[in-house]
Amino acid sequence: MSENIAVLFANEAFYLAFAGGDFEAMDELWSREGLVTCIHPGWNLLSGREDVMESWVAILANPNATRIKYRNAAATLFGELALVTCYEELEQGFLIATNIFIREDGTWKMIHHQAGASPVPPEEEEPDFPDTMQ
Amino acid sequence: MSENIAVLFANEAFYLAFAGGDFEAMDELWSREGLVTCIHPGWNLLSGREDVMESWVAILANPNATRIKYRNAAATLFGELALVTCYEELEQGFLIATNIFIREDGTWKMIHHQAGASPVPPEEEEPDFPDTMQ
Repeated sequence: MSENIAVLFANEAFYLAFAGGDFEAMDELWSREGLVTCIHPGWNLLSGREDVMESWVAILANPNATRIKYRNAAATLFGELALVTCYEELEQGFLIATNIFIREDGTWKMIHHQAGASPVPPEEEEPDFPDTMQ
Repeated sequence: MSENIAVLFANEAFYLAFAGGDFEAMDELWSREGLVTCIHPGWNLLSGREDVMESWVAILANPNATRIKYRNAAATLFGELALVTCYEELEQGFLIATNIFIREDGTWKMIHHQAGASPVPPEEEEPDFPDTMQ
């Protein structure tokens, strides 16, 4: 599996945990080694694991928030760090996100997330994964 | 100069170019080696140097956009990559930004920028630079 696909899988795991309201999975996929930071739409910066995970407890308890889907994910790798951009589709409209992952013990872990309001995204040019993997 | 301060200077250079409406400086501080991406508030993702720099031509031509100040900048280093978060103060309110820099030939260059709507930021705990450098 290429690292690019591994990062896109980590990004997918984030949205699966989000949509599933699965706090344990969400907690698992955030870095435990680096300084994690998070910018939810309309929130101030959250810095540090405790504040970031507290925010997910609140967000995942909201049934509207967990109706999230993502699309147009694109990953760029920089050695042990990877940047993913994607759109988020919610009932009330679209958001656009910057998701940053760091490789810890061979696994891509989230270290930063920012989501903010977005216009309707363009059509996806191609699927994130080959057909056989869907 | 520590790399942390070097990255905060690169971040400051970005806002100086922005506030000065200085396209040449803005063009200079974006990476020429990596894939640059940019998410302006309310815009779709811009991917690739041509689209990103075109957006800056449009934005820097708007006198309201160039009344920008930044605050609460914090940098985290990951080897050749650095993540900066900060708030942006504009006439119409506050934005919050994720700025990513990559080291090219010993200089920190911007590779990604996302800014989105923010509440009023908290008070700054400490200045970005020591007093002697202001």
